[in-house]
Amino acid sequence: MLRRISLLLVVAVSSLVVGCAGSAPPPAAPAAPVLNAPADVAAIDAIRDAFMKGYEAGDAEALGKLYTPNAVSASNNQPSLEGRDAIVASLKKMFEQVSVKAVLTPEGTRTLGSVGVDSGKYAVTVTPKAGAAPVTNEGRYMVVYVKDADGQWRVWRDIDNAIGAPAPASTPDAAAPAKAK
Amino acid sequence: MLRRISLLLVVAVSSLVVGCAGSAPPPAAPAAPVLNAPADVAAIDAIRDAFMKGYEAGDAEALGKLYTPNAVSASNNQPSLEGRDAIVASLKKMFEQVSVKAVLTPEGTRTLGSVGVDSGKYAVTVTPKAGAAPVTNEGRYMVVYVKDADGQWRVWRDIDNAIGAPAPASTPDAAAPAKAK
Repeated sequence: MLRRISLLLVVAVSSLVVGCAGSAPPPAAPAAPVLNAPADVAAIDAIRDAFMKGYEAGDAEALGKLYTPNAVSASNNQPSLEGRDAIVASLKKMFEQVSVKAVLTPEGTRTLGSVGVDSGKYAVTVTPKAGAAPVTNEGRYMVVYVKDADGQWRVWRDIDNAIGAPAPASTPDAAAPAKAK
Repeated sequence: MLRRISLLLVVAVSSLVVGCAGSAPPPAAPAAPVLNAPADVAAIDAIRDAFMKGYEAGDAEALGKLYTPNAVSASNNQPSLEGRDAIVASLKKMFEQVSVKAVLTPEGTRTLGSVGVDSGKYAVTVTPKAGAAPVTNEGRYMVVYVKDADGQWRVWRDIDNAIGAPAPASTPDAAAPAKAK
């Protein structure tokens, strides 16, 4: 252990000396949070795509991996799902009953260091496997991302809501309301 | 022993760094983002309180100052309000018609450097000034804060939704949906 520490320090000191002798950059300081680093924004763009693909494939496990283990998902008109396991279980149950096509259209993606926020609009088309007609719901979403210690961005919180009048109840036994227009 | 070695090496490394920079002080290292710094969490707690006081006082201008100029507020079943001015105008219009008592109960407040997220439950009691009975709505909220260059935390994004079944339409001319249960 001591040997390893010494070795590390020798390496560290050597780096400093080399840095000092040449015009190499100064010793590594703690990184300041970078606003909208292209790689971070691209990572979040890729996860948004993975969400759409995961929904279309009905792959609850793949979607679950996009969340942190302690994530909380707060869908409109539903109780909060606390933790990745609860999120996966809920998705599995949903995919047993319906096929889902989700289109997420970002309107603002911002990262600062290891925190990111992505918000925009969604359109989700749900087709019951029992054969009923598909229903499309539209609304807004807001997702808070964190960049984990492994360098991977994951969803820590998500929430969505409705832009216009309240959506009809999503419980299967609710009567479909007549459209006013 | 280990401690002494570490100390010696820290001194050695410090000397190298100082020697490297010449007689000028080393350049200020950018601060690493701090997770849940008590002062930051306290600042967000104070803003949450200021929101409750501002609503109760019907003070649209005071509430507006809690937002960044480019904030977007996305209330459930309403169009997004883009910018502080739009938010203040909407609040003023609301306070002309109703008194509001808002209770915000945080369930998770997290800051990382200059980004913060506060989420939890709300209960908002709206009393029409025309004399009708007060109505209480409950739901979830999620607020993204940023710490501006002046050191002040402000709301950059907020959104809320419903936990249970959809709320009745808030437009005065909408027919109240029949309750299925």
